[in-house]
Amino acid sequence: MSGIWGNKIKISIFGESHGKAIGITIDGLKPGNEIDLNYIKEQMKRRAPGLTNLSTARKEQDEFQILSGYFNGRTTGTPLCAIILNNDTHSEDYKKTSNMLRPGHADFTGRVKYHNFNDYRGGGHFSGRLTAPLVFAGALCRKILEKRGIVIGSRIESIGKIRDKSSVDIVSVNKDTLLDLSKDGFPVLDKACGEKMKESILKSKGEGDSLGGIIETIVINLPAGIGDPFFDSVESTLSHLLFSVPAVKGVEFGEGFNITTMKGSEANDEYYMSKDNNIKTYTNNNGGILGGITNGMPLVFRAAVKPTPSIAKTQKTVNIENRENVILKIKGRHDPCIVPRAVPVIEAITAIGILNLMEE
Amino acid sequence: MSGIWGNKIKISIFGESHGKAIGITIDGLKPGNEIDLNYIKEQMKRRAPGLTNLSTARKEQDEFQILSGYFNGRTTGTPLCAIILNNDTHSEDYKKTSNMLRPGHADFTGRVKYHNFNDYRGGGHFSGRLTAPLVFAGALCRKILEKRGIVIGSRIESIGKIRDKSSVDIVSVNKDTLLDLSKDGFPVLDKACGEKMKESILKSKGEGDSLGGIIETIVINLPAGIGDPFFDSVESTLSHLLFSVPAVKGVEFGEGFNITTMKGSEANDEYYMSKDNNIKTYTNNNGGILGGITNGMPLVFRAAVKPTPSIAKTQKTVNIENRENVILKIKGRHDPCIVPRAVPVIEAITAIGILNLMEE
Amino acid sequence: MSGIWGNKIKISIFGESHGKAIGITIDGLKPGNEIDLNYIKEQMKRRAPGLTNLSTARKEQDEFQILSGYFNGRTTGTPLCAIILNNDTHSEDYKKTSNMLRPGHADFTGRVKYHNFNDYRGGGHFSGRLTAPLVFAGALCRKILEKRGIVIGSRIESIGKIRDKSSVDIVSVNKDTLLDLSKDGFPVLDKACGEKMKESILKSKGEGDSLGGIIETIVINLPAGIGDPFFDSVESTLSHLLFSVPAVKGVEFGEGFNITTMKGSEANDEYYMSKDNNIKTYTNNNGGILGGITNGMPLVFRAAVKPTPSIAKTQKTVNIENRENVILKIKGRHDPCIVPRAVPVIEAITAIGILNLMEE
Amino acid sequence: MSGIWGNKIKISIFGESHGKAIGITIDGLKPGNEIDLNYIKEQMKRRAPGLTNLSTARKEQDEFQILSGYFNGRTTGTPLCAIILNNDTHSEDYKKTSNMLRPGHADFTGRVKYHNFNDYRGGGHFSGRLTAPLVFAGALCRKILEKRGIVIGSRIESIGKIRDKSSVDIVSVNKDTLLDLSKDGFPVLDKACGEKMKESILKSKGEGDSLGGIIETIVINLPAGIGDPFFDSVESTLSHLLFSVPAVKGVEFGEGFNITTMKGSEANDEYYMSKDNNIKTYTNNNGGILGGITNGMPLVFRAAVKPTPSIAKTQKTVNIENRENVILKIKGRHDPCIVPRAVPVIEAITAIGILNLMEE
Repeated sequence: MSGIWGNKIKISIFGESHGKAIGITIDGLKPGNEIDLNYIKEQMKRRAPGLTNLSTARKEQDEFQILSGYFNGRTTGTPLCAIILNNDTHSEDYKKTSNMLRPGHADFTGRVKYHNFNDYRGGGHFSGRLTAPLVFAGALCRKILEKRGIVIGSRIESIGKIRDKSSVDIVSVNKDTLLDLSKDGFPVLDKACGEKMKESILKSKGEGDSLGGIIETIVINLPAGIGDPFFDSVESTLSHLLFSVPAVKGVEFGEGFNITTMKGSEANDEYYMSKDNNIKTYTNNNGGILGGITNGMPLVFRAAVKPTPSIAKTQKTVNIENRENVILKIKGRHDPCIVPRAVPVIEAITAIGILNLMEE
Repeated sequence: MSGIWGNKIKISIFGESHGKAIGITIDGLKPGNEIDLNYIKEQMKRRAPGLTNLSTARKEQDEFQILSGYFNGRTTGTPLCAIILNNDTHSEDYKKTSNMLRPGHADFTGRVKYHNFNDYRGGGHFSGRLTAPLVFAGALCRKILEKRGIVIGSRIESIGKIRDKSSVDIVSVNKDTLLDLSKDGFPVLDKACGEKMKESILKSKGEGDSLGGIIETIVINLPAGIGDPFFDSVESTLSHLLFSVPAVKGVEFGEGFNITTMKGSEANDEYYMSKDNNIKTYTNNNGGILGGITNGMPLVFRAAVKPTPSIAKTQKTVNIENRENVILKIKGRHDPCIVPRAVPVIEAITAIGILNLMEE
Repeated sequence: MSGIWGNKIKISIFGESHGKAIGITIDGLKPGNEIDLNYIKEQMKRRAPGLTNLSTARKEQDEFQILSGYFNGRTTGTPLCAIILNNDTHSEDYKKTSNMLRPGHADFTGRVKYHNFNDYRGGGHFSGRLTAPLVFAGALCRKILEKRGIVIGSRIESIGKIRDKSSVDIVSVNKDTLLDLSKDGFPVLDKACGEKMKESILKSKGEGDSLGGIIETIVINLPAGIGDPFFDSVESTLSHLLFSVPAVKGVEFGEGFNITTMKGSEANDEYYMSKDNNIKTYTNNNGGILGGITNGMPLVFRAAVKPTPSIAKTQKTVNIENRENVILKIKGRHDPCIVPRAVPVIEAITAIGILNLMEE
Repeated sequence: MSGIWGNKIKISIFGESHGKAIGITIDGLKPGNEIDLNYIKEQMKRRAPGLTNLSTARKEQDEFQILSGYFNGRTTGTPLCAIILNNDTHSEDYKKTSNMLRPGHADFTGRVKYHNFNDYRGGGHFSGRLTAPLVFAGALCRKILEKRGIVIGSRIESIGKIRDKSSVDIVSVNKDTLLDLSKDGFPVLDKACGEKMKESILKSKGEGDSLGGIIETIVINLPAGIGDPFFDSVESTLSHLLFSVPAVKGVEFGEGFNITTMKGSEANDEYYMSKDNNIKTYTNNNGGILGGITNGMPLVFRAAVKPTPSIAKTQKTVNIENRENVILKIKGRHDPCIVPRAVPVIEAITAIGILNLMEE
């Protein structure tokens, strides 16, 4: 079983890439929240393919229909289901090679798991396309958080081996910085680095290859006291969701893996009383979380996104029907780098996770 | 809410460091599993403090009592509860400074979360001591997995800035290597590196400071097909549990963050038919998981463990009662590096997570 | 939160009576189950209104569309979502009286619960119409159970004060009896009683009033050993679902309330070895369940369905806007007795509950 | 799996009748609730055996120890575990007959379920003794509810065929009536009926037989708006818990099964504005629940408790080892009627269910 998550905000996703529709049901939204359809569309557009030469040429309109839980422009408090009908599907591209396991994809594991009965076309239920409903749900949650002053923003920290030279001040980052990043289709701090990243993606595309990268996400204005020790820790909750996003292979909070190279006296975030009588820390190596619970400092984490497995280069693989070694050449239209389109997905799922932790 | 996790194997933990007892209830164990009490004791001894000069001088016997779900040497299939009575507690050490927030600890977030009603002594419910029941439960699960041929092993990949120079062959690691690591109280591949790591820990201890490190864990002989896409992916399940372990700040699978620096053509694990007619991959950059589901290759992940926040050095902090800046000097007996004792905890929680994913 | 249930078979329902669509997502169906669309249609037709003069004149086609989890005529193992688009809605009928609380309905409680933001038209999310997706899901589950030999059947035990004079032999009822009942739109054993029941419904309709009744349901060929003590008992599981069906106000297993009038020596079902070396009981007062677990005898329970609250007679109520006492006369087309249409719903939800208990 | 229930207040029970201990962990209690140990003891005493000649002669002290989640007299907000050590067990009584299936008990179903590995002594995990931890948890929850003005009370409506002639005014029952009932070890309204009930129990005891009965429970001062449509309805939630109590075979809300004999015009609870400007109903046939949600009227339900299956009379059964028909004569000390001791259990589990529904 796979498609349901949450306890206060429960989401239930469904759909296959080339089936009739994909969608999501959100249970637990409080009644009376205004739904800003334009805001949702903007968020979904950030994820949609076909917008720049950095992404796949596939055009997916991602036009959603809200089927329930929505009345007079607001949430009703009952389950809200939205669907996106599928179209522009070149299923034939996939049929030809459906017995050839695409390396890095779930073709093999999906077949084993579902005893060959799964819809393999376009990755089926494993498709990155399933992240569109997550962005829909995330937009709803994010708007609710924003009304409470909570702002989410991300930057691309690296593409392949190119890193953003500048870094966010994770102790005192403000709302404007995060909102600016959110408006940028390729959010980096050092624009020159950003250009180099884009060039490397296009170069990779030209070579029939692909690139990955790291996304850094920050959430500000979270009150202290959210989350729990152990199994409902903020880290547990968010990592659970982040690792649900296809292609994510690593998650770290605050200084993350780097904190292991620090001494305790360096890593510990020392406290002080701020001028406005709040308890703050001088540093934020713990990324705003101690004992699984927010401490009021910015929440900071990073997600590692692997290079798109769909590449044009020939690859060694096996034909699972006749169990022979073969050479595979994938056709179809694919993203040379999924990182820019993954940014709104990461932010969306963060919004879902945070609202789930906060909602009573 | 915090203390319950799982769907097929459900665990429910409870306890505070200086309360009457800590414990765990495990629901969902199949009836008829022989319980090897010596094996459990061994596993718990690996985690217990006071054994070497690398760990705290606190002696905790960690003697467990099984209260239920156990009859004639076997599991009954009903909830199995085990408790560990607390003793050797120097509660006075903590009382003196209970209003002084210890940096890096959950003193502040716990107070906010629980409105000051939580048992602060020794970290209370946030104490690393709560990992003892997890090791108990993990030992039960691990033994069940071992009967199916599944073996778990770990090594300390780094302590502070010192890295184990050798590396595990994550494509073809065998059972013996993992079992050898399991028997070692300080498991590294390059023994010389291990000695340097130990020295650095003792040096750090002498300075009143602490160190962190990275633990690499490997699980072999898992069948392909375990896990689910999206919310019950192997990565989601294990990261959820791993981030429940106090001090873990990062988790990565396979090449993890490093995979972002590879091209798709390098990152993709190409398939081939093995001599014994199995589908295998030449490389294992995805750590044995594709689409959230095991592919039959070794499961590989790494956890970043932060330096112990309890250090003897003076630290800046605030007194939360009178809200003034103060200087804190923590007394008491603490681990200069929790990494070696975290190894069996990581392995235990891995066993719980894997059995939960596999059990029907 | 309300719309998600289950652990092995998870269902997630959504929709409002006069919204765009109603639907259900079923997560946890094993891959490879053939889906018999005609069978589903038949089951849904049993519930659909407008078929006889005993039910409402509203015509609802209840044409379902499967959006996901379905490929080449079979379940894929991924979440299966089906929707039914709404039509033939006379929303105006409801608008006029939307501030007048209909006695026996959820108008008042829904308003309080959802702070007036719920879609009140046609009962909104509280509408009996939401049982259509349950029948869809139940049909899928029932077919899977039937392949294992498990058969579900029901009879109308009473309508108002008229009781079916005959009774099912709950010790040795066979498959044919249950299948015959399933094919009958008004299943009773004593046909003459059945005619009287129908007459009383029509009489009640003529008086602008309504009737309720009791449905007895039987499941045969369940293996012994299904269910759990305490919180996952068969009774807990089924009653949870049965009380989710609108209008159900009582549930009893075996002799139910009547068992309280028996002595222990009468109530206890004594065991014997059957000729085919099975352990059976002479009587079945416990309805096939002991300690929350099936014992291999027929599972028997009864559900009390209250008279349809929508009646044409004038009723006292309040206008919730101006908080004044008023007289309400409900227009619209309503069932004079929901019992016959509730039979397939009860059976459907039973199938869901049983499969959830059985599936591993 | 069986022993965990709840979403906001989660309970996890464990233990066997003749094992080391039985107990419960409660997760989700808000921090800072004063724990009234005497109140808990009183409640547990109401359930404890050996107090009058109406119950078993077994003496169980039911002395609980709180192991966690409790500090300075209050809940800490972390999981609260309490255990009761077992003693006064005559395990030998059970061993002799352990292969002889006791009719009406879970001996057979438990064996099948747990493949013979369950602890059969004294009913093991199926023992009514497991209700002691439920009463402990219920007492905690009940006290929290009482501070909000919510009062729970019950009466024995019938023992065998003898019914309490008087009835509670379920429209306007007040707190004092309920508190009086709570203090009575054998709560009935018509004391003469109560005496007859007691006599019938003693008569039954003399005959080596047993009796059952019906318990009516009422909860007042619940605000309107608690519960949900469908799967988290008040009826679903409470019936789930009530059917977890051993021996309960029927549950009905409001008029329950009797409502099926009423016309809609009789069954509908008409609304009016009360003098203090509240919306009330003239009648309460729906037992305070509409659409699964409380309407502010008293919550009323009834539970059918079957006669104690342990009787001294000889019974036909089978020896499951050699699969032969045998005659069983149960020895040991048993309740001739469990109803009076079930009253506090029903109330306790009601308190847990209600708090779970109300807690945010």
